[in-house]
Amino acid sequence: MSTNRLESFSDGVIAVAITLLVLNIDVPPTGAGHHLGHELAANWSQYAAYAVSFLTIGIIWVNHHVMISRLRAADHAILIGNLLLLMTIGILPFATDLIAKHLHKGDGSSLAAAIYAGAFLLMGTAFGLLNRLILLRRTDMLAVEMPLAQRRRILLRSAGGSVPYVIALGAAFVSPYATLAICAAIGIFYAFPVASGPDTGLNR
Amino acid sequence: MSTNRLESFSDGVIAVAITLLVLNIDVPPTGAGHHLGHELAANWSQYAAYAVSFLTIGIIWVNHHVMISRLRAADHAILIGNLLLLMTIGILPFATDLIAKHLHKGDGSSLAAAIYAGAFLLMGTAFGLLNRLILLRRTDMLAVEMPLAQRRRILLRSAGGSVPYVIALGAAFVSPYATLAICAAIGIFYAFPVASGPDTGLNR
Amino acid sequence: MSTNRLESFSDGVIAVAITLLVLNIDVPPTGAGHHLGHELAANWSQYAAYAVSFLTIGIIWVNHHVMISRLRAADHAILIGNLLLLMTIGILPFATDLIAKHLHKGDGSSLAAAIYAGAFLLMGTAFGLLNRLILLRRTDMLAVEMPLAQRRRILLRSAGGSVPYVIALGAAFVSPYATLAICAAIGIFYAFPVASGPDTGLNR
Amino acid sequence: MSTNRLESFSDGVIAVAITLLVLNIDVPPTGAGHHLGHELAANWSQYAAYAVSFLTIGIIWVNHHVMISRLRAADHAILIGNLLLLMTIGILPFATDLIAKHLHKGDGSSLAAAIYAGAFLLMGTAFGLLNRLILLRRTDMLAVEMPLAQRRRILLRSAGGSVPYVIALGAAFVSPYATLAICAAIGIFYAFPVASGPDTGLNR
Repeated sequence: MSTNRLESFSDGVIAVAITLLVLNIDVPPTGAGHHLGHELAANWSQYAAYAVSFLTIGIIWVNHHVMISRLRAADHAILIGNLLLLMTIGILPFATDLIAKHLHKGDGSSLAAAIYAGAFLLMGTAFGLLNRLILLRRTDMLAVEMPLAQRRRILLRSAGGSVPYVIALGAAFVSPYATLAICAAIGIFYAFPVASGPDTGLNR
Repeated sequence: MSTNRLESFSDGVIAVAITLLVLNIDVPPTGAGHHLGHELAANWSQYAAYAVSFLTIGIIWVNHHVMISRLRAADHAILIGNLLLLMTIGILPFATDLIAKHLHKGDGSSLAAAIYAGAFLLMGTAFGLLNRLILLRRTDMLAVEMPLAQRRRILLRSAGGSVPYVIALGAAFVSPYATLAICAAIGIFYAFPVASGPDTGLNR
Repeated sequence: MSTNRLESFSDGVIAVAITLLVLNIDVPPTGAGHHLGHELAANWSQYAAYAVSFLTIGIIWVNHHVMISRLRAADHAILIGNLLLLMTIGILPFATDLIAKHLHKGDGSSLAAAIYAGAFLLMGTAFGLLNRLILLRRTDMLAVEMPLAQRRRILLRSAGGSVPYVIALGAAFVSPYATLAICAAIGIFYAFPVASGPDTGLNR
Repeated sequence: MSTNRLESFSDGVIAVAITLLVLNIDVPPTGAGHHLGHELAANWSQYAAYAVSFLTIGIIWVNHHVMISRLRAADHAILIGNLLLLMTIGILPFATDLIAKHLHKGDGSSLAAAIYAGAFLLMGTAFGLLNRLILLRRTDMLAVEMPLAQRRRILLRSAGGSVPYVIALGAAFVSPYATLAICAAIGIFYAFPVASGPDTGLNR
């Protein structure tokens, strides 16, 4: 199977997931007793979570493109591995809504933040496993031959890309705001060109 | 008509349907009297239904690709048959939400589970009919000639792929949980490479 | 401008619109005093409207493909004409929800049905105007030269395809059920191969 | 990286965003005490905002195509710049819903209108910055060489395209209706072919 339709389907799922994020931003109700300015300001966590998730999913899309472009064909195992990766991307609008709504709500805020960082971690793990399958076990499907050392380096850096999310998850139990800030910082870091050499980058 | 735009439109519909599944997962309300951990745990049927439906729609996508890639062109009947198949895929977010919300709610749970399995059965039937149209009645549009025996074998296996859903439907009246478990088992079975020889697989 | 990205964007909008239809189908609430079977049955107009709109949008997609495939390039006027057509397709989920929710609600049902038929009529008009622009005023952009008589015949049949929707709109004030039935009949008629010669078909 | 998948992903995000606009149009509730005609009429701001936003996002899509078609390849900085542009397009359904719901609600209407115009301004700024990056700093990636004077002219006109939105934003504090009317006028202006010479057009 050629990778064309795999890419087109993945692009579709990622594009829908990233665009559905906007549905989580509430339009404050109208009517007496409501002050639009105050209510919009009180929803700041929704805008922050939107921006962080949009940026992160966007970077995932870039990395997904890099990963798949190494292939000249895909077999059943790669299709299913990619599907599981898409499944973890597909839940990010839920995880985003969860942290956005619960961030300043005391009791559940740490749990919500932990689930948010955990969702990115899960996604990073699915990404890493698919990358591993491609680079170590489907070498006959690679478009261009690569030395083992280079493939190992890519996987190591990909695994390393998950470490900050472990920290973000742990931070949730200290301060859920810290979790969101760390996730934002990770996204901004990978957005800068300096972090994107030929085989570096978030889970690339 | 070439099959390019048929594939691109089908990919779009399937990608949107699979990604809309996340909208059915509830973010528990905030405020006094709500314990986020308990409420998230109580929604486990939503996560289970999400995973099962995502996996199943994903496998349908793989099989759809295999089916359409056998064609070098498509006529009006194939377009309409494909449209009816997409219509049955398009209702899966509804059927998923139905079983997720009603699974532990006594009275309606068996009916909800039966409709869930029934929706997969309907989709499998639409898939089988389109496959039959392509393999038996539009042989002039096949990209590669195939002996009749091989085409019949594909159709037989495709029809066989619906049998477990009949069992899942029947099981709904014994235990709706069994229905969800059977649907999960079917998805996992087809995810394994062993179940995907050149002409096997879920409704392929 | 080549028509590739025009097709890809249009496919995207149509695929999203057709798949969003499912969000209008209600999952009945759980809890005491609710009987799932009865409540699902009471929502039959939602399933009917889903099927009719899905079929109709799907046929529009087929016709859109035929219309655009006649072009070898697109200028600004065609892009804007296509955008206006997509705008009329984009509101169909709203019109579908309107008739589905108000069909058996007395007072507003005729108005809701008239708007439903009117939305299809609006879409057919946008389709006809774009077709007219392409076939009569942008002949230098046609992929294959066609005699004027043939182009006129296509436009006449395209215009004729709107007549049944005028009837469906008028019928709304007698019986809104008749409107839905006529729209269903139109969709089924165009789904049959007999209605799709080289230059026939719904607004084609 | 070739621009194919960049275009396909951007098309997906823009197509989903433009189609999600319909979810903001309310279907009036059924039941005693509700008059469908009156309630539909009272929602006119939702239809107006839908039309204005659909047209504007559609023109953005056209301009995005023009901008990207100048490239023969894309590097990390262009991908991230494009992602930030998509992020500003992705919030337009929220901004549209905000002005639609608050337009005739006294207190918050000016703020809602200012945010609506501000969202277009933000999007225009992201567009202008990406265009600047492409035309001034990534000249080695241009598909066709262009003289500096021509590239500067494109950027100047692109920047000029944001001026009306500054006026629309300022007008919000006089009359929020004026903001919506100005945004409508801008969209209609760019829809006319006269406004789309080889290097003119909204932020093109």
